Amino acid sequence: MTASSPVPKKRKKVAHGVTPLEQVQHLSGLEFMQGILECRYPAAPISAALKFELVEVEHGRTVFEGVPEFAFFNPISSVHGGYAATLLDSCMGCAVHTTLPAGQAYTTLEFKINFVRAMTEKTGRVRAEGRVIHPGNRAATAEGNLYDSRGKLLAHATTTCMIFPI
Amino acid sequence: MTASSPVPKKRKKVAHGVTPLEQVQHLSGLEFMQGILECRYPAAPISAALKFELVEVEHGRTVFEGVPEFAFFNPISSVHGGYAATLLDSCMGCAVHTTLPAGQAYTTLEFKINFVRAMTEKTGRVRAEGRVIHPGNRAATAEGNLYDSRGKLLAHATTTCMIFPI
Amino acid sequence: MTASSPVPKKRKKVAHGVTPLEQVQHLSGLEFMQGILECRYPAAPISAALKFELVEVEHGRTVFEGVPEFAFFNPISSVHGGYAATLLDSCMGCAVHTTLPAGQAYTTLEFKINFVRAMTEKTGRVRAEGRVIHPGNRAATAEGNLYDSRGKLLAHATTTCMIFPI
Amino acid sequence: MTASSPVPKKRKKVAHGVTPLEQVQHLSGLEFMQGILECRYPAAPISAALKFELVEVEHGRTVFEGVPEFAFFNPISSVHGGYAATLLDSCMGCAVHTTLPAGQAYTTLEFKINFVRAMTEKTGRVRAEGRVIHPGNRAATAEGNLYDSRGKLLAHATTTCMIFPI
Repeated sequence: MTASSPVPKKRKKVAHGVTPLEQVQHLSGLEFMQGILECRYPAAPISAALKFELVEVEHGRTVFEGVPEFAFFNPISSVHGGYAATLLDSCMGCAVHTTLPAGQAYTTLEFKINFVRAMTEKTGRVRAEGRVIHPGNRAATAEGNLYDSRGKLLAHATTTCMIFPI
Repeated sequence: MTASSPVPKKRKKVAHGVTPLEQVQHLSGLEFMQGILECRYPAAPISAALKFELVEVEHGRTVFEGVPEFAFFNPISSVHGGYAATLLDSCMGCAVHTTLPAGQAYTTLEFKINFVRAMTEKTGRVRAEGRVIHPGNRAATAEGNLYDSRGKLLAHATTTCMIFPI
Repeated sequence: MTASSPVPKKRKKVAHGVTPLEQVQHLSGLEFMQGILECRYPAAPISAALKFELVEVEHGRTVFEGVPEFAFFNPISSVHGGYAATLLDSCMGCAVHTTLPAGQAYTTLEFKINFVRAMTEKTGRVRAEGRVIHPGNRAATAEGNLYDSRGKLLAHATTTCMIFPI
Repeated sequence: MTASSPVPKKRKKVAHGVTPLEQVQHLSGLEFMQGILECRYPAAPISAALKFELVEVEHGRTVFEGVPEFAFFNPISSVHGGYAATLLDSCMGCAVHTTLPAGQAYTTLEFKINFVRAMTEKTGRVRAEGRVIHPGNRAATAEGNLYDSRGKLLAHATTTCMIFPI
């Protein structure tokens, strides 16, 4: 329930793309995620399409922010559930990633998301905070919470990731 | 596991937007969804952002299709889980919607998605089929399956929706 | 991650049964749950079959404890997942119940449980702590965590409940 | 939605217990589950506590049956959700088990259960049918449906299991 942090100015220079596996595998997950935060590695292409960005990274925790806009609506006048799902999937998966040493990768097996308040054009900036619950050797779990700018909970989720060597 | 249907040519004229609640509430869910299919009502704005479209509607069942492209990737070289989640949330929620009479609305309380095969740029057209499992008066459940063009399962999901009068 | 509390001696007098709806509907959920804790209302019959008990009740939170024993094993030498599911379903649903005024009831629409450490005969007393996340008017969500006696997380869950007048 | 099968008479001789890992690891999952069905290996201890039994086994599918009784009630006059969860966890996990060769084992990472109709003392015999959805090398998914004796759906679930060598 932390307040929204100011977006660093360097954000404006974000490039979107993917980092080749050969390059990723020599980095710990934390190094890779910090590299994205600091724009040394490109941000996820989908974060351009849905206009959200990584704003915080630490061991076991990442935060993404965005402003849901009309372009992300469902046909019945609120933000599509897929928008919240994308931000929460991002912050949970990346939180797991930050716990992995070089040479290990993860894949998301599943997540479940609960929607507790609808988002509209008035919602403004939202903040998806992901945190590892159980950092396992072969499987890890994490949770994510999506808040509006006043700290009101909009959606929450949990995920299961599989960990494997690359 | 049905094969991908050819996309009707009229699809090209799709407008994206929302339909005002005052208008939606006089329609059964099936009438509304068929209206979107036939381009009499606008398609969800998010379906422009993520380039997917409604291709089939019947009582208790809807199908959406799209072609996942590089713009929807995560930073580690596959399609972001949010893409599958958005298509599955769409086909499940809309399947529930088709079962509602005029004057009733739904909201998605939660969904859970399992990812069973990664999507890449080679995946091609995918198909999200949603089907109502339990059409309740106050709560309904539905399932969704995402297939590639050869009928291989990529992801599957279930959802819980709340039904209420408007 | 609280340590296991000593079980009060009065526990030994627990009666198991159900309280008629006519009686329950005049009580707030908190009054009813406190009545079970204080043995003024019978404990759930299933808590005799699976040998667990309510040990803490407050607004938005309940705790159940039990000692998983051989009688609750699966065929492959660990405690059956249904045991953890039963304790977590109990503590989450009852946490939601404590937030309801007299005249309102709830039903569990769904829960998801993650298993992070197996339980065996050596596990000893476990503690299922349920806490409301979102106390809504028509739907509420809660989470539950199952800990061993040293505070190690064994399983975690979230639930969606529907709230309705009786 | 199959009708409830008559319970074979040999059921009465069921022994409950666990089979040592050393013994299980030389069997395929299907051999082990068929051995339980034919009473050559003991049934899960918890199936004595909650009075349910394995009634069908084939590759990728198992069925359990039981009669929910007053002893499995919650305090508010219906069958506790943990009962349905236990039967569904059993039929889904065992369905995954039947797909594994000797030398491979599974553990349940998570399951989600939706409750669509309450069970009471009048429900009678119920039937939990589990079926593998995705039989993976490292992770598998399955679904389970719980029906009453007339084929009405009471609850449904999906699970994620991790597969590993032993």
